[in-house]
Amino acid sequence: MSDTDPQATAVSRRGLMLVLSSPSGAGKSTISRAILDTDPLLTMSVSATTRAPRPGEVDGEDYYFIDVARYHEMVAASEFLEHAQVFDNFYGTPRAPVEAALADGRDVLFDVDWQGTQQIAENAREDLVRIFILPPSQAELERRLFARAQDSEEVVRKRMAKAADEMSHYAEYDYIVVNDELDTSIAQVRAILTAERLKRDRQVGLRDFVGELCAER
Amino acid sequence: MSDTDPQATAVSRRGLMLVLSSPSGAGKSTISRAILDTDPLLTMSVSATTRAPRPGEVDGEDYYFIDVARYHEMVAASEFLEHAQVFDNFYGTPRAPVEAALADGRDVLFDVDWQGTQQIAENAREDLVRIFILPPSQAELERRLFARAQDSEEVVRKRMAKAADEMSHYAEYDYIVVNDELDTSIAQVRAILTAERLKRDRQVGLRDFVGELCAER
Repeated sequence: MSDTDPQATAVSRRGLMLVLSSPSGAGKSTISRAILDTDPLLTMSVSATTRAPRPGEVDGEDYYFIDVARYHEMVAASEFLEHAQVFDNFYGTPRAPVEAALADGRDVLFDVDWQGTQQIAENAREDLVRIFILPPSQAELERRLFARAQDSEEVVRKRMAKAADEMSHYAEYDYIVVNDELDTSIAQVRAILTAERLKRDRQVGLRDFVGELCAER
Repeated sequence: MSDTDPQATAVSRRGLMLVLSSPSGAGKSTISRAILDTDPLLTMSVSATTRAPRPGEVDGEDYYFIDVARYHEMVAASEFLEHAQVFDNFYGTPRAPVEAALADGRDVLFDVDWQGTQQIAENAREDLVRIFILPPSQAELERRLFARAQDSEEVVRKRMAKAADEMSHYAEYDYIVVNDELDTSIAQVRAILTAERLKRDRQVGLRDFVGELCAER
């Protein structure tokens, strides 16, 4: 990293878990991709799923592909940070690779809804940073859902109701980013990540570092 | 502000108090000036003092110049966020202009030592963001104190002891910035300010904003 990289830290650090949630159409995926592409210390969490791999999907990269028996084993052994059933398939976030990354000073990004966030919060409170992304207005959210879906008004109305349900949980998040202008929102999420890395609590090497600074010679 | 200004927020916000502390020679003044010069929402706190104005100093800008009787009145009426005696003079941070700025959604920067920070924390806990700036190494701190002071080794030794005393309070701060490369440190303090402004708790207009987003039509 360059000398002026604001992500650089002089002291060893424990990683953090960054959760991004938003209603569909608020820009979360675009923001996630932009942050991941420019931050070598941040990796995306890989989910486990019981659904079949699609052509081109790689086990351990796109998903961990597991069978239903293994899924229930992992649930019973508390090996998921969060898990859920979506229609006929099961999904979960395995805990072990996340904890290995954190201990190594790397940060992990999660793209989950309010229910996944609540489960993660129960399992890993102190390492968690929760960001909720809001659209700038109802009209703009509607416009983005239409532009994206090319669906009927009825389908969009249902999506708006689902979006409203997701947004009603904004108060369970630490930070709120209103995604009006995309570049601003990306800069804001980057700033949150930079700031959280500089929190005293996360800089586990500080005590020794300050000891050296204060040592009498 | 431009569209891509990461400081921009769509929702009305309560201001925050940003405390920067560091030992002499760690770069605090340079960082403060850089942040203040580029951030229209941030203002420097103005102290009151019983010392006489120096040529060119403007009352209400450089200091509020007050007499000793008024100082003691203000202490008795809890009108200071923090106050201290330095040799024969008294200094204090008047509470009223700070609270007016915060209510107006502006942020106030304080350049105080660990004792001032402790007093402010007792008076205004929830609005406070505390950053401690550390030098990158003892050798570099010594070099900066020499470069700055052109003083005897004895004088520098005393300053090093004072610096060690200040640094021993790092654990009372929320964020730690190690000032190795100045541009990085400025970017890091800016990121902390941006992130703190995006905290849900500070965005007092959020409830109404989300209400509008979720309203059925």
